[in-house]
Amino acid sequence: MNTSKKISVGILGATGSVGQKFIQLIDNHPFFETVEVMASDRSAGKTYKDVVNWFLPTPIPNSVADLIIDRCIPNNKVRFVFSGLDSGVAGEIETEYAKAGYTVVSNAKNHRFDEDVPLLIPEVNSDHLDLVTSQQYNGGMIITNPNCSTIGLTLSLKPLEDAFGIDEVNVVTMQAVSGAGFPGVSSLSIIDNIVPYISGEEEKIESEPLKILGTLENNSVKLKNFKMSAQCNRVSVIDGHLESVQVRLKEKTTKEKIIEAWRNFKGEPQSLNLPTAPEKPIYYFDEPDYPQPRLHRTIENGMAVSVGRLKECPIFDYKFVVLSHNTMRGAAGGALLCAELLIKKGLFPQNG
Amino acid sequence: MNTSKKISVGILGATGSVGQKFIQLIDNHPFFETVEVMASDRSAGKTYKDVVNWFLPTPIPNSVADLIIDRCIPNNKVRFVFSGLDSGVAGEIETEYAKAGYTVVSNAKNHRFDEDVPLLIPEVNSDHLDLVTSQQYNGGMIITNPNCSTIGLTLSLKPLEDAFGIDEVNVVTMQAVSGAGFPGVSSLSIIDNIVPYISGEEEKIESEPLKILGTLENNSVKLKNFKMSAQCNRVSVIDGHLESVQVRLKEKTTKEKIIEAWRNFKGEPQSLNLPTAPEKPIYYFDEPDYPQPRLHRTIENGMAVSVGRLKECPIFDYKFVVLSHNTMRGAAGGALLCAELLIKKGLFPQNG
Amino acid sequence: MNTSKKISVGILGATGSVGQKFIQLIDNHPFFETVEVMASDRSAGKTYKDVVNWFLPTPIPNSVADLIIDRCIPNNKVRFVFSGLDSGVAGEIETEYAKAGYTVVSNAKNHRFDEDVPLLIPEVNSDHLDLVTSQQYNGGMIITNPNCSTIGLTLSLKPLEDAFGIDEVNVVTMQAVSGAGFPGVSSLSIIDNIVPYISGEEEKIESEPLKILGTLENNSVKLKNFKMSAQCNRVSVIDGHLESVQVRLKEKTTKEKIIEAWRNFKGEPQSLNLPTAPEKPIYYFDEPDYPQPRLHRTIENGMAVSVGRLKECPIFDYKFVVLSHNTMRGAAGGALLCAELLIKKGLFPQNG
Amino acid sequence: MNTSKKISVGILGATGSVGQKFIQLIDNHPFFETVEVMASDRSAGKTYKDVVNWFLPTPIPNSVADLIIDRCIPNNKVRFVFSGLDSGVAGEIETEYAKAGYTVVSNAKNHRFDEDVPLLIPEVNSDHLDLVTSQQYNGGMIITNPNCSTIGLTLSLKPLEDAFGIDEVNVVTMQAVSGAGFPGVSSLSIIDNIVPYISGEEEKIESEPLKILGTLENNSVKLKNFKMSAQCNRVSVIDGHLESVQVRLKEKTTKEKIIEAWRNFKGEPQSLNLPTAPEKPIYYFDEPDYPQPRLHRTIENGMAVSVGRLKECPIFDYKFVVLSHNTMRGAAGGALLCAELLIKKGLFPQNG
Repeated sequence: MNTSKKISVGILGATGSVGQKFIQLIDNHPFFETVEVMASDRSAGKTYKDVVNWFLPTPIPNSVADLIIDRCIPNNKVRFVFSGLDSGVAGEIETEYAKAGYTVVSNAKNHRFDEDVPLLIPEVNSDHLDLVTSQQYNGGMIITNPNCSTIGLTLSLKPLEDAFGIDEVNVVTMQAVSGAGFPGVSSLSIIDNIVPYISGEEEKIESEPLKILGTLENNSVKLKNFKMSAQCNRVSVIDGHLESVQVRLKEKTTKEKIIEAWRNFKGEPQSLNLPTAPEKPIYYFDEPDYPQPRLHRTIENGMAVSVGRLKECPIFDYKFVVLSHNTMRGAAGGALLCAELLIKKGLFPQNG
Repeated sequence: MNTSKKISVGILGATGSVGQKFIQLIDNHPFFETVEVMASDRSAGKTYKDVVNWFLPTPIPNSVADLIIDRCIPNNKVRFVFSGLDSGVAGEIETEYAKAGYTVVSNAKNHRFDEDVPLLIPEVNSDHLDLVTSQQYNGGMIITNPNCSTIGLTLSLKPLEDAFGIDEVNVVTMQAVSGAGFPGVSSLSIIDNIVPYISGEEEKIESEPLKILGTLENNSVKLKNFKMSAQCNRVSVIDGHLESVQVRLKEKTTKEKIIEAWRNFKGEPQSLNLPTAPEKPIYYFDEPDYPQPRLHRTIENGMAVSVGRLKECPIFDYKFVVLSHNTMRGAAGGALLCAELLIKKGLFPQNG
Repeated sequence: MNTSKKISVGILGATGSVGQKFIQLIDNHPFFETVEVMASDRSAGKTYKDVVNWFLPTPIPNSVADLIIDRCIPNNKVRFVFSGLDSGVAGEIETEYAKAGYTVVSNAKNHRFDEDVPLLIPEVNSDHLDLVTSQQYNGGMIITNPNCSTIGLTLSLKPLEDAFGIDEVNVVTMQAVSGAGFPGVSSLSIIDNIVPYISGEEEKIESEPLKILGTLENNSVKLKNFKMSAQCNRVSVIDGHLESVQVRLKEKTTKEKIIEAWRNFKGEPQSLNLPTAPEKPIYYFDEPDYPQPRLHRTIENGMAVSVGRLKECPIFDYKFVVLSHNTMRGAAGGALLCAELLIKKGLFPQNG
Repeated sequence: MNTSKKISVGILGATGSVGQKFIQLIDNHPFFETVEVMASDRSAGKTYKDVVNWFLPTPIPNSVADLIIDRCIPNNKVRFVFSGLDSGVAGEIETEYAKAGYTVVSNAKNHRFDEDVPLLIPEVNSDHLDLVTSQQYNGGMIITNPNCSTIGLTLSLKPLEDAFGIDEVNVVTMQAVSGAGFPGVSSLSIIDNIVPYISGEEEKIESEPLKILGTLENNSVKLKNFKMSAQCNRVSVIDGHLESVQVRLKEKTTKEKIIEAWRNFKGEPQSLNLPTAPEKPIYYFDEPDYPQPRLHRTIENGMAVSVGRLKECPIFDYKFVVLSHNTMRGAAGGALLCAELLIKKGLFPQNG
């Protein structure tokens, strides 16, 4: 690709928390440039900075602050959109954009299990990108980013699946409030408290890794069929989902070999040197009380996952803890990495 | 017993967080009266109220505030002591008191696995109290209260063990900071954070329920041998340990039958109507996002455990969430209930 | 009054946070009984327990749980209502109820400065109740409870005004999230954070004490005219507003005399022995780091205010810290005390 | 100076929280290089990484991790030390180092009011550096950094003093837990709570600004004599002290002129382009609810202060809110800026 000319992109759901993060990350991005912001009819026609309840610590990029918000209707200003839409509306709107020939990179759950839509973690299943060639969208396409808790978990499972095979995975999550967007979780619900429930979350974690770790056969993903179980909790943490994981492996192995598998793990984003890719996708900590959300969520700008406390398990084979930054790697950052992979592999048709 | 005359008791480790809670709970108790407070040599000789860093919301009971602190050496002022001692010193001191003929009710871990020492949850294994008759303490005896995370978990398991039999239990805990005492966990470690480690805790949870649920045979406890695995996390909650639990049962059953088993559960403290006993030891909630520490930890003055979110598990048979108040049911309140059982069963020799 | 027969009351805004608190407090109240719950048109016609997002630690009283919600339109089921309505709608609805002959005890701000409406803290200005005799509401009447931050502050000022006279008051508040209702403050706004702004709050604190401390002359309140300044902050606390206060007094005095004035302070609720009245309205603490929200907000069931840290001030005369429970004394509990005063003084016409 | 050769420095109190921050900031610093770490006798002789309870999100710099800790006794390995010592020991140790010819840049309070020791905020009173020429330390010298709450406050006051003159300043602080070091504030003291007291803090805030804003006359600082009053609170925030301030000015002015004075403010660190200097020392926010600790504490890497909510005050002339990062600008970062000023002004004798 010719990186000297950036690809103009639009942000669907630009005023929401994922939308804001997309705008922040795309500012000064080598491949992309935000030139359109789309939101609800209520906001359309107004200036972005006047409508958005911006809550990121860096200011609104100047180039975006004064954009007039468009409705979520294809108007051909751009050919590439990032979607931070709420799942209540994302499904239909994204389909419409794809049918209109847009490339849609979505963080919403709606299309994740469409047969021809890649559910992508670039380090894990970059080959699934080929699915887009089967999409019947008249030149457009949809690729999706998994759920925020799935991403950290699946990244930590991938080296185990590759090296030893996975039989069963049980996980209990402790999830940050930013995962619910803004205003999201009421302070009255979470100060000095835990909410042991996140609507729809357990179902996502119990299904998404099976597609992501699935194998591409005849341009279709054969789902993995190991057993997964998840229990999800919301805790008083701003950013960073921590997960307690237990795994049964197909092949017996040692603690040392597992740690080695994690530490040596690299994927296509690393070999392609994608702008948002972490140098090392997985950090294993030997300290007995690491990783911790506040200390480790921002490693490699929030794009690496942190693993620790690997221990033999009396029931499963091993147990450990994994942490990932839910709004970076687990949402906007992860989706952006998918988009970078798409561009670098030459799959964005308008590119060139 | 003749409740018109209260039993004089001493509090070992009276200035610590468990010690304070003992003093608070024993104030106006129908069976007991605090007449002696014991602490480290550093504090001995000083007035209790001048030394203690009292952090409970109710004031120091007047009858205790002006007591002069004694050293932790038997002096025969009382014949009955509650121990809130740190495990670093509890083992030896408690042995000394028992040898001197004292009845010792301890919250410390040191003697929990002594063969002749009951590890007691009065609703679960009140029959284990008989173990004390084998103790060779010259009239004295030691009984122990389990770890704070064990108690809630084991109370929720007991009806399942009785009705269906337990095969495997996996648990991930989210534990309140009060479990670490005062000052305990630094605020810098826990605001906007989780610490996925509590020293020694996983070992306790993986072993204690097997003794508590064990059967008394020939005046000795036959440990259960089902598999247990635990991962422990410290979270930003003041009081109340929440635990995500998965169980495999010996006998297949239904969700309804499990909930019924919990809701109908009663034990000896209820039939004996012990002063600190909750009317119902277990509350099951149908609400999808209950129980929560801040809302439910104080049910029945913190002596009942709350259970919710029972769901079939793709790996085990069922999964659920259990909450218990770690400093009440899980520490001083639980130990006090043990003491009440002992008195009511006529096992305190000086009583009568 | 004949307390054997309770007065039937309705709760306006029954599903909101203040409404819930009214329902909780009136359960088993000696004077009142909740027989009607009113809320928005959206909720009307539905069962209370199905609509309310109940977030108090005690369960919904059985007698209320199954009530069908009415619209906020007078229907003569009761003659007495407590209003926990939002100020967006409270003004008009309360007027309508009063015109229909209802007695309205309101926590909303709308009528607080109506000339003939008492703005009441029963310990401070119970004589202002007489204002209701001037109200032109066809038998109905409105009495109001001050802002949550005003109440604690004004209670602490009253003994100073009586004994020494007040010249100037500067206050900086640190307010709990429950003051904003539910969902209110987003967790993303307040974990590891402070918001130095609460809409409309500074204006209320700078004006309400001047009416409350005003003198009744010719059945009208002559406002005090000392200078007041307030800055308000929202902090990560569930319940309990803490305020740093500086005062300039008309008459020079000593620290001892001020503390004595606080400790000896009593008002009409104490002499009338009203059910919700604290025994002592003000607690002064000598400890250098008291009062603290979590430790002291529930003193006397949240109806007493706590004061501490009295110190000479290089600019004003004295400075101190005052704490009050914003949803008890500062909202529903305070309003209930007003209602009790009204009843006990025989001002509720249907009573007898 | 010749920046190609870095000045070797030692860190006194290297394992403490301020010490850690010094080490983090000096890593890759253009002027300085940490080659010695000093701590208590208990730690001396051990490797830094084995002793330190490192709690910063970035790893221990490699060049420091393996240093062997020295005692706090001058040994001539370096000629320049940063002191993060506790005030319990700082006074004597720093004197000893100065007497041994060291340049000591200290964050401790002990020498702040020594007549010949500059109490320095480089943007405010860089001219006070000249005081060191009067020091009788045999070639050594001591310069000090003010208290963390003083720095933000005084930076916000300086432009007002210069433009309008200050008559009175009242301040209420809401201070982050990191200000107390590690472990510092217990989580039990601060979750869902406020502690309205910080030992010694009010006295520092009421005195330090008067020296810092004082004028240098005949190589001695003439203290300002306006009145200052402070009340200090500890709140549940990790980093960032927020302060509610009221000021009386000598000369009447407008809101616009005050904001302009803040926005245009620059000092010597800016003109000298010191490495740690913020581009703009003061940011004024027009948003009604800014500044907030979590959003604004890291502006300019934590070296700028944020101001907002300027409003006329019914008692004083104006009131506003100021925020500064207490461990950056308010401690290690502020002290480092002092050191950079010293170097750049050629006052470090060994330099050149």
